[in-house]
Amino acid sequence: MENIPLIKKEDDIAQIICERTDILDGDVIVIASTIVGKAEGRTFSLVDIVPGAEAVEFSKHIRFTPEFIQAVLERSRECLISSPVLLVEMKNGHICINAGIDESNVEEEILLELPADSDASAAYIGKGIESYTGTQISVIITDTNGRAFKRGQTGVAVGVYRIHPLKDWKGQKDLFGKELKITEEAVADEVAGAANLLMGEGNGGYPVVIIRGLKLRSKDSASVKEMYRSDEEDLIKKSLKYLRCRV
Amino acid sequence: MENIPLIKKEDDIAQIICERTDILDGDVIVIASTIVGKAEGRTFSLVDIVPGAEAVEFSKHIRFTPEFIQAVLERSRECLISSPVLLVEMKNGHICINAGIDESNVEEEILLELPADSDASAAYIGKGIESYTGTQISVIITDTNGRAFKRGQTGVAVGVYRIHPLKDWKGQKDLFGKELKITEEAVADEVAGAANLLMGEGNGGYPVVIIRGLKLRSKDSASVKEMYRSDEEDLIKKSLKYLRCRV
Repeated sequence: MENIPLIKKEDDIAQIICERTDILDGDVIVIASTIVGKAEGRTFSLVDIVPGAEAVEFSKHIRFTPEFIQAVLERSRECLISSPVLLVEMKNGHICINAGIDESNVEEEILLELPADSDASAAYIGKGIESYTGTQISVIITDTNGRAFKRGQTGVAVGVYRIHPLKDWKGQKDLFGKELKITEEAVADEVAGAANLLMGEGNGGYPVVIIRGLKLRSKDSASVKEMYRSDEEDLIKKSLKYLRCRV
Repeated sequence: MENIPLIKKEDDIAQIICERTDILDGDVIVIASTIVGKAEGRTFSLVDIVPGAEAVEFSKHIRFTPEFIQAVLERSRECLISSPVLLVEMKNGHICINAGIDESNVEEEILLELPADSDASAAYIGKGIESYTGTQISVIITDTNGRAFKRGQTGVAVGVYRIHPLKDWKGQKDLFGKELKITEEAVADEVAGAANLLMGEGNGGYPVVIIRGLKLRSKDSASVKEMYRSDEEDLIKKSLKYLRCRV
């Protein structure tokens, strides 16, 4: 969508979208977490933060202030890497750099955090859109994240409404009738990445993208937590935690 | 594209695509590595493989035969995790499970490997399409890969022609005139993921997807290697290698 205004606290994102475009049944409305955070007033200033001992210790080995590190740690369940980047596991299981705290596209000195519960935010906006339009749609709230082994960031889903993050191919057959080994496709992240190609990062960005025609709406409720691995399941997370215990 | 036939050895993929659809300047032709591997005859049977000592040792801790493990190791520079999955770094720097060897969508007893140099394969097909049609296009060869921390697989780029895997946002300004911190967007992987939503994994799959309108064609040559991190740059790779030395 090319006509989303600058979003401010208490704006009704569902209404803003519905006033500006037609929504059809089955649309996936992809929304940048930045504008959701702004509408929810999730901005803060480092001036108000008192760093603890761990944040002060970490600050000796990374280019961040103790106040910024404290802000990241307060939003995290556990820190996986503390230098030269801050890689943390957030309370809902999402693993990312700096707990998703963002300095871009907000005013000087002000930081923006992710919605506290992005699934809930997606559901709130999704139900709003359905109520304004009488349609049945899905919502994905996105952020941009780096990844292991490769440079570059991609759009990823941090909150979903009525779209399961994983599509199950189990039991389906390949071209020669053999059962497929690849059973879970991370469709919400693929949709988030596709939308990110159109969103852009800068001042000409489009924070809302509508993906049409994919037939991914779920009948039951959905959560990004469905794709986060437990410590036991994730060898890489386990390795990082093992190393941290020994540093 | 809905009308790609079953691909066999020595098929001309560029010709097959151009005979079946119109190609426009700037199109990104996304092609599943499966059909590129088949056209290049990159199938093999485990019967012909003689496992070495390392493969025999690994087979005690993983559900694969020594022959399959040997096939993976022969295509790898280094093994990062050897149980309960085989995560390897391939010779060009690509990190993936099982060195990308695939049992799906090929005949019984036959395995399919990735093209030996997917950038070269992408360039060969891309130049073929340009020569048949007189257009200027880009090509991405894709595979599906898992990722750290999250369940589910996504489409990723394993070979590119005339599209840089990373888009540089450096120097661009955000909404409030501040310089952007996120400087590299992994566009080739985002396009690969978008295409994967349409490709599917099973017998109704579409191995060729055309993405139009993105303006991502590069003037100079491009390689997937641009996005692979060095050992020093990648903390997670470094951690895994550190742990392997101590197992």
